[in-house]
Amino acid sequence: MKILVLGGDGYLGWPTALHLSDAGHDVAVADNFARRQYDHELGVESLVPIETLRTRVAAWHELTGKAIETYVGDLTDADFTYHIIGDYRPNAVVHFAEQRAAPYSMIDRKHAVYTQSNNVVGNLNLLYAIAETDPDIHLVKLGTMGEYGTPNIDIEEGWLEVEHKGRRDRVLFPKRPGSFYHLSKVHDSHNIEFACRIWGLRATDLNQGVVYGQQTPQTARDDRLATRFDYDAVFGTVLNRFCIQAVLGHPLTVYGKGGQTRGIIDIRDTVRCVQLACENPADRGEFRVFNQITEWMSVAEIADTIAKCSPEPVMIENIDNPRVEADEHHYKVTHTSLIELGLTPHLLSDTLIESLLEITKRHAHRVWAEALRPTVNWRTPRSF
Amino acid sequence: MKILVLGGDGYLGWPTALHLSDAGHDVAVADNFARRQYDHELGVESLVPIETLRTRVAAWHELTGKAIETYVGDLTDADFTYHIIGDYRPNAVVHFAEQRAAPYSMIDRKHAVYTQSNNVVGNLNLLYAIAETDPDIHLVKLGTMGEYGTPNIDIEEGWLEVEHKGRRDRVLFPKRPGSFYHLSKVHDSHNIEFACRIWGLRATDLNQGVVYGQQTPQTARDDRLATRFDYDAVFGTVLNRFCIQAVLGHPLTVYGKGGQTRGIIDIRDTVRCVQLACENPADRGEFRVFNQITEWMSVAEIADTIAKCSPEPVMIENIDNPRVEADEHHYKVTHTSLIELGLTPHLLSDTLIESLLEITKRHAHRVWAEALRPTVNWRTPRSF
Repeated sequence: MKILVLGGDGYLGWPTALHLSDAGHDVAVADNFARRQYDHELGVESLVPIETLRTRVAAWHELTGKAIETYVGDLTDADFTYHIIGDYRPNAVVHFAEQRAAPYSMIDRKHAVYTQSNNVVGNLNLLYAIAETDPDIHLVKLGTMGEYGTPNIDIEEGWLEVEHKGRRDRVLFPKRPGSFYHLSKVHDSHNIEFACRIWGLRATDLNQGVVYGQQTPQTARDDRLATRFDYDAVFGTVLNRFCIQAVLGHPLTVYGKGGQTRGIIDIRDTVRCVQLACENPADRGEFRVFNQITEWMSVAEIADTIAKCSPEPVMIENIDNPRVEADEHHYKVTHTSLIELGLTPHLLSDTLIESLLEITKRHAHRVWAEALRPTVNWRTPRSF
Repeated sequence: MKILVLGGDGYLGWPTALHLSDAGHDVAVADNFARRQYDHELGVESLVPIETLRTRVAAWHELTGKAIETYVGDLTDADFTYHIIGDYRPNAVVHFAEQRAAPYSMIDRKHAVYTQSNNVVGNLNLLYAIAETDPDIHLVKLGTMGEYGTPNIDIEEGWLEVEHKGRRDRVLFPKRPGSFYHLSKVHDSHNIEFACRIWGLRATDLNQGVVYGQQTPQTARDDRLATRFDYDAVFGTVLNRFCIQAVLGHPLTVYGKGGQTRGIIDIRDTVRCVQLACENPADRGEFRVFNQITEWMSVAEIADTIAKCSPEPVMIENIDNPRVEADEHHYKVTHTSLIELGLTPHLLSDTLIESLLEITKRHAHRVWAEALRPTVNWRTPRSF
């Protein structure tokens, strides 16, 4: 099928594009390079060097003979969004093209407003472009497990059967997220559900957990195909950050007591989940939610796992939590839909961490150690 | 207390400002006159002539000796938002300053994007301005009953006690609204709840029903104090629209079978509810939701009520519903909080409708009949 990957130059968008291309689909990517721009803004860069999108696509073509079409532009520019949908005419659109870091959205008011405008408006334009061009196009949207927060009940896949005062209904699972970024995804989910209801769109909302890892079989084929590996406290996800701290001999910085528990997923499973969603589309009018995780772990447990696998001794430092979040809470998540479609999870194994430690060691000279420390505090509202 | 009314030039903002001033509070209003601009855009105007804000405020001063300070600007301009909060230093901010018509948000993509950006960004700026200036300021935010949609369970006041798989939690009431406008209020509610959680703000979200009526004791004192009365299919609420159709001898246009049921409230109760919310502030960190309605009625019942009160015979015409909404559904709403604070509801009485019919008759020559017919269709996505 023809699949358009929005945000196809990013950490997960790029490996997804390669995975889908490798699986025999026709793939195009669109990107505005906002993620590369955040690097300039924050003064950091990917630990693993990455090539330009042009070089990446050329390398893939050279190695496989497969072409990946590219579109450069911004979804908040409706002309661009309509153009790519109308020009490429995909069967499925995979939408990674949003600002995706909670700390970035919490830097100040300006970043909060940017995150919500960028994500919500880009997604609205996309919904209209699909609805007006061809409502049969399947939207595969990246959401986040963070949309749910940490309720004291089990987390279901997007919907909840409730009984209240003797009556029953199937309602959207109540959301109570922990940052203006996560809130932007909650807003998107509500908008998408509505678009399915009024225009009969088909949509899959992938509520993804914290992703770890840096390589897929496709990106590992050539250095020019590498995807980014972020270790800074703004864009680096927790497990990736801990690996770098372990290699550098720094203590692993656990926020608070580390009891906060999160759903996690291997990058190789992420790309597979997106493929499964595309190949098994939602029905017309269906707003389908999959919880895209394979297991869950507390931050303290993640730190312990890294410490155990590291060849060198590792210290753990509990620092003041810059976020406002529960330290101890219930966490149990239903995540059967993707497994039923054929996902065979890679669980967090020693092998993976060892390979991650290896990648980290190779590029350790590129680390700017200060960037590992959190500087964004949830409790301090600032205009800019 | 000092109360700042945002959107204080609008249909409800203006009568609220007068009511609060009359009740002995110090009142300031802020407005960007967007509502007057929509009139120009749509080629309609208030059935009842309205004065400029300057004239209104001067008339109120002339009649009562009370001053109302005015600020002219836009909440999406953060400098303005910070300025008014810092300059006026209110105890409470009443936030009416949002695009408030479902059909307007459904005109096309541009209007949907405008509605969500305008409402969400303005509200975000306000949250930051309050948090940074003085987190003790009480935010009284106008939401809508439309946020809930029409679930098959009773609607509670913003929160829901759930039991699921043997565990219990108090969660935000699940929302499933019926337009991009209503969705913007859902987004606001989520953002406000989060701000209360991380910054300890105090907020009251008033989920208001469909408002009817045009006069309060304050606005009735002088023609120069009149508030707007919208009859067009975009901004006119259903009961007000039916009154005008009855007076003109046009059939009342009921969308579909008219089984859709909505919470409703008299304009005199609206202003009283806002006063009660201000005078009984939420606690620090509390996100409190009141369902601001006094009763509910189906659209067909509203039409019948008008027909009964009209001195002339009235026809009812069922037209294709331009909206996507359930025609027959459960509807039962908890709305005790405001009554517990002291609200004595005006129920939809013959007296009110007769006075509304009277007002309508006086200005009937100003009606542009075509504007009564819906032209915005929910099912037709258009870029612009």
